[in-house]
Amino acid sequence: MTQIEQARAGSVTPEMEAVARSERLDPELVRSEVARGRMVIPANKVHLEKDLQAIGIGIAARTKINANIGKSAVSSDTECELEKMLLAVDCGADTVMDLSTGEQIDAVRRRIIEATTVPVGTVPIYQVAQQLDDIVDMQWQYFLDVVEQQARQGVDYMTIHCALLREHVPLTGNRLTGIVSRGGALVARWMAAHGEENPLYTHFDDLCEIMHQYDVTWSLGDGLRPGSLADACDEAQFAELRVMGELTHRARQRNCQVMVEGPGHVPMDQIERNVKLQTQWCDEAPFYVLGPIVTDIAPGYDHITSAIGASMAAWYGAAMLCYVTPKEHLGLPDLDDVRQGVIAYKIAAHAADVARHRVGARERDDALSKARFEFNWAEQFRLALDPETARRMHDETLPQKGHKKSHYCSMCGPEFCAMNMTEQLRKLEREKAGS
Amino acid sequence: MTQIEQARAGSVTPEMEAVARSERLDPELVRSEVARGRMVIPANKVHLEKDLQAIGIGIAARTKINANIGKSAVSSDTECELEKMLLAVDCGADTVMDLSTGEQIDAVRRRIIEATTVPVGTVPIYQVAQQLDDIVDMQWQYFLDVVEQQARQGVDYMTIHCALLREHVPLTGNRLTGIVSRGGALVARWMAAHGEENPLYTHFDDLCEIMHQYDVTWSLGDGLRPGSLADACDEAQFAELRVMGELTHRARQRNCQVMVEGPGHVPMDQIERNVKLQTQWCDEAPFYVLGPIVTDIAPGYDHITSAIGASMAAWYGAAMLCYVTPKEHLGLPDLDDVRQGVIAYKIAAHAADVARHRVGARERDDALSKARFEFNWAEQFRLALDPETARRMHDETLPQKGHKKSHYCSMCGPEFCAMNMTEQLRKLEREKAGS
Repeated sequence: MTQIEQARAGSVTPEMEAVARSERLDPELVRSEVARGRMVIPANKVHLEKDLQAIGIGIAARTKINANIGKSAVSSDTECELEKMLLAVDCGADTVMDLSTGEQIDAVRRRIIEATTVPVGTVPIYQVAQQLDDIVDMQWQYFLDVVEQQARQGVDYMTIHCALLREHVPLTGNRLTGIVSRGGALVARWMAAHGEENPLYTHFDDLCEIMHQYDVTWSLGDGLRPGSLADACDEAQFAELRVMGELTHRARQRNCQVMVEGPGHVPMDQIERNVKLQTQWCDEAPFYVLGPIVTDIAPGYDHITSAIGASMAAWYGAAMLCYVTPKEHLGLPDLDDVRQGVIAYKIAAHAADVARHRVGARERDDALSKARFEFNWAEQFRLALDPETARRMHDETLPQKGHKKSHYCSMCGPEFCAMNMTEQLRKLEREKAGS
Repeated sequence: MTQIEQARAGSVTPEMEAVARSERLDPELVRSEVARGRMVIPANKVHLEKDLQAIGIGIAARTKINANIGKSAVSSDTECELEKMLLAVDCGADTVMDLSTGEQIDAVRRRIIEATTVPVGTVPIYQVAQQLDDIVDMQWQYFLDVVEQQARQGVDYMTIHCALLREHVPLTGNRLTGIVSRGGALVARWMAAHGEENPLYTHFDDLCEIMHQYDVTWSLGDGLRPGSLADACDEAQFAELRVMGELTHRARQRNCQVMVEGPGHVPMDQIERNVKLQTQWCDEAPFYVLGPIVTDIAPGYDHITSAIGASMAAWYGAAMLCYVTPKEHLGLPDLDDVRQGVIAYKIAAHAADVARHRVGARERDDALSKARFEFNWAEQFRLALDPETARRMHDETLPQKGHKKSHYCSMCGPEFCAMNMTEQLRKLEREKAGS
């Protein structure tokens, strides 16, 4: 039985217990959220038998972040991608997706699943496209076999672009940037060549069987997400979202867990609308967004352009944020890009959790600010999202050990530190009150 | 006559004309916004006689960003700060504030005003505190003389903490991080020592005379801005904001231009409220915010934590954003920190301008996305906020010259580029349609 099936039957699974503990929620609440489909616990039975640590993704839980890794045909290798994965998890990624293309993707995936305790996601059509000379040659059974093979390996959630229909493609005809989802483009290419409906849609129930058998969580891929501000919130995007709503219901009927993926590139004033429509049309299925990027003008800094959109999306109700690295649009991220992407997204997720008043969310902020006010530099660094960077920056101008006890930093110096002055002022007030 | 005085008299000054041109607004609209006090044009008459380029700060104009520079007693020197200033302006800072403390601040300021065509702001109390052994020794005339001297040098706007009253200080007693504004802490210290009201408040009209004479724009400093999420939106902060409202009216009555400064550290769900209250209490005076930082847990990355808050504040109606660099809370920013801070804030300001549908705001996004879709890498880099960084990142994995014409990047490789596939798909459709 899948998590949703057990939840509906009234059972609190060990995974729900674990989620309740880490989220400081009542186990019964977790069960009811999973039963309702408003929370998913991506936990493939095969991966669970190894040492997967279950996490809950949904509006009742802390905002989660995903880090994409994976080699391309042009760049990187298995060891390098494993290193990125470990770094991402170390920096706080809640899940990782292996988006490898190129050779040996089976081996990369196996090693990634073995090496991590966080849920692992994939996009099976990449392997299909990789193994065939051309996606046009794809037969349905071939796709199904790849999905089953990956499920057997222990993949916890899969992005499959089932909701992109033939009739949607012409809606992208006037787009500035066309189709920017790799999976979406592959499906569109297949449909154009065959003159047939998307087989991932027509055979949806077959896929549900595999997803159900292993309890792989659906991540309904948004093949028509906008790739530029100009294309945001257009007919193509929303037509696909409506079909995602239909498929959410069908998957749930088959006792599968479902997330829904979202954009992309969206101006700030349209983010709330995107979240609200997804919530409404997809019956509150956890929304898993890529950014969104809020301006197209900053290649090299898209971890920032998208952290702005991601924090807002999470505040409005998105459940998981897929990171974007500084290298987005420019090349395959390296180790430092992965770190920058994860940190930016930890910030976005945490800021949203604070804004949503999630249980205990602000405790770390308060503890760090207390340490800051007390000039307890060591504690401030310890509590920082990236202690090493914080310490290094302090070291740049005040490297001596004694400076780690200074009641000032090099920004203001000893005479102009406002917090230092406050401290003196309070001392004076206490003395006055005591005298 | 000051800009507001002339605007009220019905005159469109050459500075208003210049603002109208650069903002693509009707000069009469600019005049009426300035007359209404909803837009300021910080342009000291002395600086104007040199080569100041006038800019408009207000809700009708593009969101502006300010870069703080200035040496501290602990770190940096004049040449280094000049270099930072030039870099900041080169990266797109609309104004700079010289926040120097330590020795020779007169000389630094003079050279900065000489070297730039953007408006320059200062915080005069820093010089006062620097020149006296202790701020407690400050006599009113001394403060006034420093303000006049800086005005004579050509400073275009000044942050003065006039609205922090004696009765406000006890409201900070239970704060987690007390007073975090240097100016605010100096004023509080003076008041505590003398047992008297803030002289910057009691002598406000004297200050208005100088501001009026040179047309220095007021930037009413928020001495009690919160320095942590825990202290956001407390009584102390809002008590001061109410007095800022009173002073806005008084300054305008004396034909002075006024901006109002804002926080600081604010959770995302409180940003809109902050902007709305300022707008209401300060009669729509341009709101000039520092961030706000939306989580305290990321020292080393506060350009990002604050770019999230700044973009939201600007979208809700703030007119100017004071940048925060990655070094915030840790040390004096170096050249690269300045660059990172300015770029993050250009992103925040631009994203808000797009979200507010300001005239032409999205044109650059669309042009860049068009270049991206056409694999016109050179044009994509040229239009990027930071062309050098974008090109360098692309070079990292695809350094050869020929790759700058490739229809893919190292992220997806030639087989998996969605935009490349879209291009082929569209070509196919065109051929079909033609046959």
